[in-house]
Amino acid sequence: MNIADQDVNGSETIFHKFVGQSLKLDGGGELWEPVIAYRQFGTLNEAKTNVVLVCHALSLDQHTTGFNPTTDKPGWWSNLIGPGRAIDTDKYFVICQNVIGGCSGSTGPASEDPKTGKVYGLDFPVITIGDMVRAQSLLIDALEIPDLFCVIGGSMGGMQTLQWAAAFGDRVFSAIPIATAARHSSQNIAFHEVGRQAIIADNKWHGGKYHEHNEIPSKGLAVARMAAHVTYLSEGALHRKFGRNLQDREALSFGFDADFQIESYLRHQGMTFVDRFDANSYLYITRAMDYFDIASDHDGSLTNAFLGSQTRFCVVSFTSDWLFPTHESISVVRALNAAGANVSFVEIDTDKGHDAFLLDEPEMFDTLSGFIRSCADSRGLTNLVRNQKQETP
Amino acid sequence: MNIADQDVNGSETIFHKFVGQSLKLDGGGELWEPVIAYRQFGTLNEAKTNVVLVCHALSLDQHTTGFNPTTDKPGWWSNLIGPGRAIDTDKYFVICQNVIGGCSGSTGPASEDPKTGKVYGLDFPVITIGDMVRAQSLLIDALEIPDLFCVIGGSMGGMQTLQWAAAFGDRVFSAIPIATAARHSSQNIAFHEVGRQAIIADNKWHGGKYHEHNEIPSKGLAVARMAAHVTYLSEGALHRKFGRNLQDREALSFGFDADFQIESYLRHQGMTFVDRFDANSYLYITRAMDYFDIASDHDGSLTNAFLGSQTRFCVVSFTSDWLFPTHESISVVRALNAAGANVSFVEIDTDKGHDAFLLDEPEMFDTLSGFIRSCADSRGLTNLVRNQKQETP
Repeated sequence: MNIADQDVNGSETIFHKFVGQSLKLDGGGELWEPVIAYRQFGTLNEAKTNVVLVCHALSLDQHTTGFNPTTDKPGWWSNLIGPGRAIDTDKYFVICQNVIGGCSGSTGPASEDPKTGKVYGLDFPVITIGDMVRAQSLLIDALEIPDLFCVIGGSMGGMQTLQWAAAFGDRVFSAIPIATAARHSSQNIAFHEVGRQAIIADNKWHGGKYHEHNEIPSKGLAVARMAAHVTYLSEGALHRKFGRNLQDREALSFGFDADFQIESYLRHQGMTFVDRFDANSYLYITRAMDYFDIASDHDGSLTNAFLGSQTRFCVVSFTSDWLFPTHESISVVRALNAAGANVSFVEIDTDKGHDAFLLDEPEMFDTLSGFIRSCADSRGLTNLVRNQKQETP
Repeated sequence: MNIADQDVNGSETIFHKFVGQSLKLDGGGELWEPVIAYRQFGTLNEAKTNVVLVCHALSLDQHTTGFNPTTDKPGWWSNLIGPGRAIDTDKYFVICQNVIGGCSGSTGPASEDPKTGKVYGLDFPVITIGDMVRAQSLLIDALEIPDLFCVIGGSMGGMQTLQWAAAFGDRVFSAIPIATAARHSSQNIAFHEVGRQAIIADNKWHGGKYHEHNEIPSKGLAVARMAAHVTYLSEGALHRKFGRNLQDREALSFGFDADFQIESYLRHQGMTFVDRFDANSYLYITRAMDYFDIASDHDGSLTNAFLGSQTRFCVVSFTSDWLFPTHESISVVRALNAAGANVSFVEIDTDKGHDAFLLDEPEMFDTLSGFIRSCADSRGLTNLVRNQKQETP
């Protein structure tokens, strides 16, 4: 990883190191000289008014669109972001940063602590969604971007979107939190705790110091991923996709092989995740989500978090998402309404579960296209972009 | 464990060994000289017409009511079974058998293989719900009980109840399958697979031979239990019971201790389960549930399984049970109706999730009391029982 004092473009990911700077953290500590790995698509207009910040979910990264060199696949939101897509890279300048605590280039528990020269491991400080967003804002400052035309994200990306609007409302023209909540529920904390305990139970975790042993707690991380993956789908989608179909066999084996397609699928999800994700990052990021509770930072009132907000909101949920069910989005919408904010809300009918925000959902694409177009009109951005394009030879 | 040629009453559990007999299994093999551990409550009437067979769920046992010597607590269905309760032990003779494959006295993977003198471990044959029920029927034969007034059970106990009605319909006067399904769904197989992989990932599992190493894969089994336990509750119940309340602290610790009550609760559930359950049993019993699909044994038609049934059915589901949702019960009811069977169906409104069948649910108690009383009337059992009582000095 090539990290310099200034941004370096390597494999399309850009690494920004905050030399001589530290990031203050909600837990009381600070992170010295953090690095942010990010990608950008499209062109920044002269007025710097066309920036879309995309926030990623727990297991994702900065590779929103284009090519992902780690997975050899298209970026995870290529169906939404690109030329002519809902987030049109011919019009907007799209930035996506790997969160701090992550493992795709930004400083996280697998990084070297610049003060000791050793991998952080569990010496990495516990971070919050607020810390992730504060780090992102520092990069936006460093890029000399005054404000963001739009902040958008699903799941944990939606948490960051809400946090941006709550903490930096005057820098967010529009916000699109999708399949998310303003605080992590008891059930969701429970599922995360299962995943963490699966990692911690792996004897190759070595109290978080597996890097020193040249080992990876891959079995525990795979189990954590499997447990989480079930929660991203719906019962209906699982039934439609797999049912009780057998995997490469005519009859039950009367053994513990993966008889059913769903078993084979989950094992595959677990195994491939291990190749691209750091176990300690999984602990830290799930912890950040569990700690998330915007209201608690505002005297217990979610409304207070958004009082006087000028941001235009579009809140999106999915009927079959039982991890972040619609009533969580409705709580956000009610608070925004009570705060006098400008808010649209759409619940999209689908059987695809929480994962729907990543999938081919025409109604979601149409909703986002319409909302973004309307916001662009309100900001006078349509003309600006068109003018800029006309001026380009 | 004191096992003799005939039933021996030890700590109230009775052990019946099928000396010189084997149990034929759906997988093609057989189990030599299986032992069934069971408990009984109440008194068998002279006509032997007042037998209620209670079938237990995945993690439970024969200690339905009275005292459970393993947990030092009342039996798991003490609120339903006892003098004056819905299943009145002053009227009915209640039997509950630990399933084969289990670990509470019946033959399972932790038992000694009588042919080798060694613990079975993974040499134990993979069993089915059908095998469990066939084993139960052998005990009923051995007790010279011609038929059962009622078979009742929740969750996996409900699967056994349906299997009894499908396989031995002429021996089942009434059947009460609660919070169950006629086949295990893709989502439920997925959650079970997560649990199995958590156990298998534990290095102390030793390929199933942990008994030889004097070790227990307790961390893996605890994770499996935690993952399953979340699915037994509802989002609403978790929110009501725990919310985001902190455990024994005023503020977040910014660490990986159990900050939240729900984390502490789940860890406790995992740890205590390890003391009372065998890890290999968990693999075998979850496998049996995954394999369960009554229709597949009847040319793919659930209706065919119950054609001509004279059994009276009472099917019960709970609104917030997302593990065995109401639509699974409705599928059973539709098949029973199509088969011309006598069926009542009640969906009970509760936020307690799948676990509701074990909890204080007055509407369930009332439903079961009414149904059982009506069946007792139909069988002329009310008078028989009353006469018998009057004759007793």
